[in-house]
Amino acid sequence: MITRLAALALTIATPVIADPLPSWTDTDTKAAIIGFVEAVTDPASPDYVTPADRIATFDNDGNLWAEQPVYFQLTYAIERLQEQAEADPSILTSDTLRAAAEGDMEGMLAGGTEGLMEVLAVSHSGMSVEAFQADVSDWLDTATHPTTGMLYGDMIYQPMLELLRYLRDEDFQTWIVSGGGVHFVRAFAEDAYGIPPEQVLGSATPTEFDEETNEIMKLPGIAFVDDKAGKPVGIDSRIGRRPIFASGNSDGDFQMLAYTMAGDGPRFAMLLHHTDAEREFAYDRDSHVGGLERGLDEGPDRGWVIVDMASDWSRIWP
Amino acid sequence: MITRLAALALTIATPVIADPLPSWTDTDTKAAIIGFVEAVTDPASPDYVTPADRIATFDNDGNLWAEQPVYFQLTYAIERLQEQAEADPSILTSDTLRAAAEGDMEGMLAGGTEGLMEVLAVSHSGMSVEAFQADVSDWLDTATHPTTGMLYGDMIYQPMLELLRYLRDEDFQTWIVSGGGVHFVRAFAEDAYGIPPEQVLGSATPTEFDEETNEIMKLPGIAFVDDKAGKPVGIDSRIGRRPIFASGNSDGDFQMLAYTMAGDGPRFAMLLHHTDAEREFAYDRDSHVGGLERGLDEGPDRGWVIVDMASDWSRIWP
Repeated sequence: MITRLAALALTIATPVIADPLPSWTDTDTKAAIIGFVEAVTDPASPDYVTPADRIATFDNDGNLWAEQPVYFQLTYAIERLQEQAEADPSILTSDTLRAAAEGDMEGMLAGGTEGLMEVLAVSHSGMSVEAFQADVSDWLDTATHPTTGMLYGDMIYQPMLELLRYLRDEDFQTWIVSGGGVHFVRAFAEDAYGIPPEQVLGSATPTEFDEETNEIMKLPGIAFVDDKAGKPVGIDSRIGRRPIFASGNSDGDFQMLAYTMAGDGPRFAMLLHHTDAEREFAYDRDSHVGGLERGLDEGPDRGWVIVDMASDWSRIWP
Repeated sequence: MITRLAALALTIATPVIADPLPSWTDTDTKAAIIGFVEAVTDPASPDYVTPADRIATFDNDGNLWAEQPVYFQLTYAIERLQEQAEADPSILTSDTLRAAAEGDMEGMLAGGTEGLMEVLAVSHSGMSVEAFQADVSDWLDTATHPTTGMLYGDMIYQPMLELLRYLRDEDFQTWIVSGGGVHFVRAFAEDAYGIPPEQVLGSATPTEFDEETNEIMKLPGIAFVDDKAGKPVGIDSRIGRRPIFASGNSDGDFQMLAYTMAGDGPRFAMLLHHTDAEREFAYDRDSHVGGLERGLDEGPDRGWVIVDMASDWSRIWP
């Protein structure tokens, strides 16, 4: 009896705490994340932050899911452009659009950012938001990645899913702040990450309200670019509070991290460094997507945590 | 003993249900609101809606707080413009701005909507969002209404506070979708209505991220007008779901209500009709603020509930 009581007492005194981040190896990175979360959620801690202010923001491409060899949304856009051009070749009004429709990546990329925006503008407009998102969902159900052969929607990072869930379990709001299109990301963010549409910010086409159909229609053009200095602007516009936690992987996230860290009190910023050519991809300074240079140079001195995918993650995919 | 048990059983069987809307009189309006909420929250109801889709949107001026004789934000803007002009008269570059600085309402209103936007643009820019919101808070702590003598921040509607709380208790998200400035409304929405900044949409000045100070700066001009057809556009952009409940009071809310009601399944739209000259204000078709004409003409046929302030509300202020 005494033994049973003692065993019971021991069970109560030292409960087995489940590891909230099982796909993260036991490195300083994991310890830093958990240490931060415990400090801001412990009411007895000097670093305690009320739940309402526990805003965490995440980049999407290359941070929650993969982004090589090109942003998945661009692959989608090119396929849709090709279909549209088959029905009506007259929509191909520039060299960039013609290159995209022919699958000539080099020719398309020669148009620079403006060229990419043109491809998105033509392929993502002239339909309702609802119809667009249904189409994105359909595409994600079947389209596969050129080198891994996986469904794009399966190329999300298991360690980041665990981090999102861990933060939400600790009463953080987890927001996506993506350079990708807001309507595109919302089409899968809830299924993929458990993040509802109202917590997804992104770049955006202009839209208008059609008073005949009561639908929101997507128009050609770019209304907002949620990248670089656009990220803190978007966060202020949509969230209205400075995050206390920010996670990105490229220099497009630099300003979001700087904005996050400049507030008072405890703060956490991390950059995912793609170092794992074997299990995922390895790229940084010279990459044409997800380039990371200034973050590597300045991040550590600013107290930002650099996550080394190869050593900090024990697995990549769910 | 039997008596005590019976009494206990009776207590359990017929608990006293607190009235969720005590400042609403027992009219068809109140019954319609409660009937809708009960239908969409009862899992056994054919009209059941999952909590995630329980999005409710509210106009602010004239709907959650008063808006006569002019929008309170405009009063704030004029006072700030006067202060700025004392320090630097050269900012008064137009007849509208000069009229505003002299307190000449008629002269200012002669500039139309563009004139008002000019007053807002000049008085609401050149500072950080944080500094702006601190100033709005200070103003609301002391500024009083010209006819009631009340603090502006006290001129919020008790029946609407009860409705907001009732909806939140039933797992609705309550959003503000205001024609007023998003930074202005956020400065008091949490204290006044229990609505956090991330659930406030509004009109907006352009902003930019200052990489030296890591602050968001307000710039002159207008980036978004969250009124009329802008309301559904803003809702799509920020929330990404069609609301199931919408509440407004002017023709500026017409498209928000139409958008809300055009979705599938159970829907609720209401328009607050200002009919109470004695306790608040009475105005509709010809009012220079909060004009309500099309809503009165078409609303009832569309199934929208018209709230009669004089008869549906037993009290106005908290």
